[in-house]
Order: sequence, then C-alpha cells, then structure tokens
Amino acid sequence: MVTEAFAKRMEVVKASAIRELLALTAGRDVISLAGGLPAPELFPTAELATLTSRILAERGGAALQYSPTEGYGPLRAQIAARTNSHWGTAYTAEEILVVTGSQQGLDLVGKLFLDEGDEILCESPTYVGAISAWNVMRPRWVEVPTDEDGMIIAELERLLTTSRHPKFIYVIPNFQNPSGRTWSLERRQQLMAVATRHGISVLEDNPYGEVRFEGTHLPSLRTMDPDRLVIGLGTFSKIFCPGLRVGWVAASQPVLGKLILLKQGADLHTPTLNQMQISASIDSGDFEARIDRIAAVYRERRDAMSRALERELPAGARFTRPAGGLFLWLELPEGVDARELLKRCMEAGVAFVPGESFYPNGGHANTVRLNYSNMPVDRIEEGVRRIAVALRGLLAARGGSVASGGGSGAKA
Amino acid sequence: MVTEAFAKRMEVVKASAIRELLALTAGRDVISLAGGLPAPELFPTAELATLTSRILAERGGAALQYSPTEGYGPLRAQIAARTNSHWGTAYTAEEILVVTGSQQGLDLVGKLFLDEGDEILCESPTYVGAISAWNVMRPRWVEVPTDEDGMIIAELERLLTTSRHPKFIYVIPNFQNPSGRTWSLERRQQLMAVATRHGISVLEDNPYGEVRFEGTHLPSLRTMDPDRLVIGLGTFSKIFCPGLRVGWVAASQPVLGKLILLKQGADLHTPTLNQMQISASIDSGDFEARIDRIAAVYRERRDAMSRALERELPAGARFTRPAGGLFLWLELPEGVDARELLKRCMEAGVAFVPGESFYPNGGHANTVRLNYSNMPVDRIEEGVRRIAVALRGLLAARGGSVASGGGSGAKA
Repeated sequence: MVTEAFAKRMEVVKASAIRELLALTAGRDVISLAGGLPAPELFPTAELATLTSRILAERGGAALQYSPTEGYGPLRAQIAARTNSHWGTAYTAEEILVVTGSQQGLDLVGKLFLDEGDEILCESPTYVGAISAWNVMRPRWVEVPTDEDGMIIAELERLLTTSRHPKFIYVIPNFQNPSGRTWSLERRQQLMAVATRHGISVLEDNPYGEVRFEGTHLPSLRTMDPDRLVIGLGTFSKIFCPGLRVGWVAASQPVLGKLILLKQGADLHTPTLNQMQISASIDSGDFEARIDRIAAVYRERRDAMSRALERELPAGARFTRPAGGLFLWLELPEGVDARELLKRCMEAGVAFVPGESFYPNGGHANTVRLNYSNMPVDRIEEGVRRIAVALRGLLAARGGSVASGGGSGAKA
Repeated sequence: MVTEAFAKRMEVVKASAIRELLALTAGRDVISLAGGLPAPELFPTAELATLTSRILAERGGAALQYSPTEGYGPLRAQIAARTNSHWGTAYTAEEILVVTGSQQGLDLVGKLFLDEGDEILCESPTYVGAISAWNVMRPRWVEVPTDEDGMIIAELERLLTTSRHPKFIYVIPNFQNPSGRTWSLERRQQLMAVATRHGISVLEDNPYGEVRFEGTHLPSLRTMDPDRLVIGLGTFSKIFCPGLRVGWVAASQPVLGKLILLKQGADLHTPTLNQMQISASIDSGDFEARIDRIAAVYRERRDAMSRALERELPAGARFTRPAGGLFLWLELPEGVDARELLKRCMEAGVAFVPGESFYPNGGHANTVRLNYSNMPVDRIEEGVRRIAVALRGLLAARGGSVASGGGSGAKA
C-alpha cells in the first residue's frame, strides 16, 4: 500500500477537525469571525491594474521570467528601508529574503533548525500556522506561559534550564495571533537578555505590527540583539493584500544564506510579477496611506466587537482589547468547551476558531479566537449577539451561570 | 554559535560551485546556454495586462484574497481537462493540487515519502532541482542507468531487489532535463509493470511534454497504472511563463489529500491572482496557439544548435537530438572535465552547465547540458563555435585529439 510508504512525519500531519467544520460555512450565509482574512474592500484593485499594465508594457519579459531566489533587488531594498524606518533596525537589502508569504518563512526556518525531537519555545498560545509548518519536522513544543505583557520571562528561563535541544524561541510581539496581546518594552528587553545569555535564536514574527490602532510602535527585538540572534518575519498580506503571497525573512549571515538555499529547493523563487507589483506600489505614494485606512477600519471593527462583547457576554467570560491587528481572544467560563459552543454557533450562522488549535500541546478548551477584520460592524454585532445567545444556551444546558452582562475585557 | 543549532540536513545543503560561477555572468555580455530559461519574447505580456485589468475590475476582492490551499477551482478543472486531453489520463478536478511552481511539487512529494535514508530511484542523470528539493530529507539516491529509450528496466529491477526502503521512482519521460531524451512507449509500459508488481509510487514529471517539435505525444504513465501509483507533476512555466510560479500535482487519494495538508504548512496556497490569470488565459483562445509558436521557435533553435555542434565539435564528442523541450546533452571525449571547459568558456563569453550537477551521486565529469530556448539562432551558433574552440584548446593542452569535424549526434 502507498500509505505504508509515507514518511514518519505524516503521522502528525492531519486534517484539522475544526477546519473541516469551518469548510461547511463555504457558500452559506454565515457570519465568519473565524478566519484571518483582511477586508477585501480595502484591496488595491484599481491601482494594481494600472501598475500591472505598466510593468508588463515596460518590463514584461523580466516580470514573467524566472528570477533570483533571494528576491527582486529593488523590493529587497524597499523592505529593508521600511523595516528599518518602522522598527529601528539596520538591515541591509542583502539581509532580506523575499518569500512566498511569511508562511514559507516558517517552513524554511523549521528546515534550517529542526531535527526530530528538537525543541521550539513559543508563546502559549501561539500561531496555528507555525504549528502546521513545523510539526512536519517532528519537534517538541515547549509552551511558555504568557500574561498581558507577553511571555513570562521567569518561566522562559526555567524552561530553558530543562530544555535539551532548544533551537529557537518563536514570538509574535505585536497584536499576537491569536491573543491580540502586545509585549511591553520591558519584556522584549528581558527576552533578548535571556536569548543572548543562552545564545539561542529568536524568530520575531511581525505580520500585524503596522496595523496599530493607538499608541506607538515598540522597537523590534533586533534592536536589542548584540549577537544577531533575531530572525525577522514580515508580510504584505495585512498591509497590502494576501492573494499575491509575498512576505520576507530578515536575518544576518550565515542564516540568510542557508535560507536562500532552502528556498531554492522549495520553490525556486517567489513569483516575479508579484514582487514587482508590490515594489511599484510602494513607490506609488499611496502605499502608506492605505495602511492608515486599513487601521482606521479595523479600529472601528475592534471597537464594535469589544462593545458588543461587553454588552452581550455572560459573567465569567473575559476578552482582550487588542491595540492593533486582526484578532481578539475570548476566555469562556471554566469548563465550557469552545468546540461545543462552535457547533451551536454554526447552527446559528456564526463561526469562530476554538482556541485549542493554538496550543501545540492541546488543552485550553474554553478559549476562542475572534477575527474582526473581515466583517462590517453590523455583522460583527450580530455575530457576537448570536455567540452570546449560544453561550447562554450552553451554560443553561449544563446548569451553569446565565447571569447577563458583566463581561469584562482583560485589558479594558 | 547559531550554526551549531542548524539541523543535520544542513550538512548536505550547500551552495553549488557551478551556480556561483554562473552568477558571474550576471550583467556581462555572455552567451548563456546554461540556464533553463524560456524565451521571454514569447511571453503573453500584452494579453496578461488586459486579462489582469479585467480580473481586478470584476473579481478583485477574491483575486487578492487568501484562497483554498488546493487551488482555484476553475483552474483545477482546466488542468484536469488539458492533462486528460493531451496525455490520455482521466483525472478529476479534485485530483489536482495547484502548487507554487512544480518545484514545490517536488518539495511536497519529498516531505510525503522520505525519511532519512529512504531510497529514491531516478534516471541517471536526473533533474538537478529534484536533487536540491529532496536532499534536505537526506535520502539515498539510486541512479538507474539509461539509454536513448529511457531507464534500462532490467537495471531498475536489479536495483529494486537490493533496495531496502525504496519510496518512489522519479522519471521525466518527455525531453528529459538534462538529457533531452524521450522514453519509448515500450519502456513506459515496462516501467509501470515493474512499479505495479512492487507496489511502488512513480513520480512522472512532465514540464516539457507539450513543447514537442516532431512526432506525436506518448501517453502518460498514468494510463498504464491500474493501482494509481503515478503522481503527475506539471507546470505552466514552459507553455505560458515561469514568473507566475504556477504548477500542479495530479494524484489520487490519499496522496493528494496529504499533499494538500503539507502545502498548507509550506505556503498556505499558490497566489490567487496568478491562478486566475492563467485560468483566464486558457479560456481566452490563444493559449494553445502560443504553445505552437513556442515549439516552432525552439525547434529552429534546436536545429541551429544541432547543426553547429555537428559542424564544430571535434571527434569523440557526442550529443543528443531532442524531439522537444529545452535541453540537449553533450558527452565530451573521455577524460575531459566539463568544469575545466566551463572556465575556458566563461573567459570566451559562453556558459553552460557541467553535467556532473545532474548525477546525485557525482561523477560523469565529461558531460554538459546545453540550453537552446533562451538565445536567438546566431547567438547559439556563435556560442557553440566558442565552446568548440575552447574544447580544442583543452584537448590540445592535454595532448589529446584535435581532429576537426565528425561530431555525431547520438540520435542524429
């Protein structure tokens, strides 16, 4: 049988039951607070049509040809310049590798570091896409407890002392997926002090950082990194559009050189035209203004979701109030299973992702990730209302608290 | 040190000395017969501009959004229909996975099958991109000797009896890269009889098959495959353009389902707009006619290269006469090192790829891959002339034969 020939890694590569459940929403009129989709009405459709015509007329032969694995030169320089100006880093263009979405960056970093049984230290909870990217290398996941300010560093230090093959620490310091939380400056400094002392690489994933609603940018971990241990991941998916699949890895040698070799084996290079489209758009002048428009719309949606949760949730449920990004995190009363709640919600025409998916070692059945970027305000309000109704129903069925009101945001 | 943390697989992931040598050609006026680049003057630049404007105007929100991992539905159906009509297969749309260039198909198939030490049976020589895709899984390469009709099946059977963990047989039956050879129908049938008897998967890579200069298509291995052991790989790179990075894998369950899960972890999905662009172009009516134009131009270039080699090469050198595709294979007189020849050629302003790169276990220093798709006829003629001059110089320096004329095509 063919299946007997599959590699051992396939034992852990399984379809997600949640994903299959959510696939049922396709084609149905469901209020989806589940995915991580940006708002398509903010996509640069007209601008891209104009830029693409110009690129194809002026440089069509190059735009449709094979191109270097490391990426389109002008785009690498633009990524370095934007990263440095936003996050205080000092990357050169030669320290940037353009990848086919930052998901590919996760795959490549996993290939670079992970032998079977090696350890990844990550926030608990962490990004589900990282779990699926790295599980094929059969690592051990060491989940580091977190609070509202990021990883609890004392816990990180404790776990590092018992860890045998720690390869890197994976963090999303800004508006984390799924929790919506942002690390404090102090925690960032503490993390890098620990990483430097242990000589351990740090993967700083920053897909949402530029979509900030309030407050000011906190510097990249790379600015606190005398030994160049930080590998940065970024993407145009949330600040431009995801359908072009363009992201980047920022790292010093020898890491970047090795990632280039791995990318060559993985897909030769990121689509040439797509890189030129984004490069031309950055040059066009509207690029930064669009990010402001995106943040303004998402801020309004976050506010709508926060208000609705505050109003509708029964006592005992808590939620975060993210200062940017796409996600808000909900903790249901202890003992409530978010998968059970999801089943009721699907019947009521609203979807979300149960939080258990974001814990590589499982557990935390009472957590929920809510996305607010992809639905207009009235749908968000109606969606939260339906979730609250379903939750009350579930609590009533199990004889728990059904007192109304009093849900409080953890950071509210 | 960070390098100590790298995975064991990185010991075999190394920059190619040849690639670095060839990188020196960038920006110089070199006649490159080295790469595998299609002719950019045949790219659909004007058509793509029109199609892209229409897609973005009519369906821009979807074209720039995240999309399903398995691929854009209409394109999957078009790929299945084209594959079935050209190659006699009976794939359904659900048996097609769209990938980010067929190089990604290689990466995913490797992840699906290969544990460390597992064996890949391949043609000797074989595609260098497959070697770089799979070496990260640290397999053993079992090279099966070939002749002008494909793998020598008796050798394959002999090697299979001593192979301990054979996972799949990798073949490029049409206009193989690098040899330019095409398997006979009989060899295809014999291969599938052996594969079926052993229950071993067969990866049929067919990037060049549609670019045929003469004769008629031979059927896919899948038509001789009662147990559905064949996994097909295809690409739009050679029949449309490579810069969009769109290819496909065709396979039955459970293989296709597993590849979809692996792709999700690798890059979520292939760029949405790029898939819609190709789908629209296939619908546009000029798609098939362009392939005829590509084949006509490459035929002329193959003829020019064959004639020039016939005329210029010293005795003792042999070459193939491919019936399609992009490459021609040159065997230099025994004892000549193609890397030495390349050094002389680079000084003379012409580049090629030494054939040793295409042997996963090394050796065969006297072989050369020549590409004819990316240079006009006069440059091909001049390039071959310079190679012949350099070869005569090399032979003279080592006191070998410098008799002129008499080079004969192996299939001429």
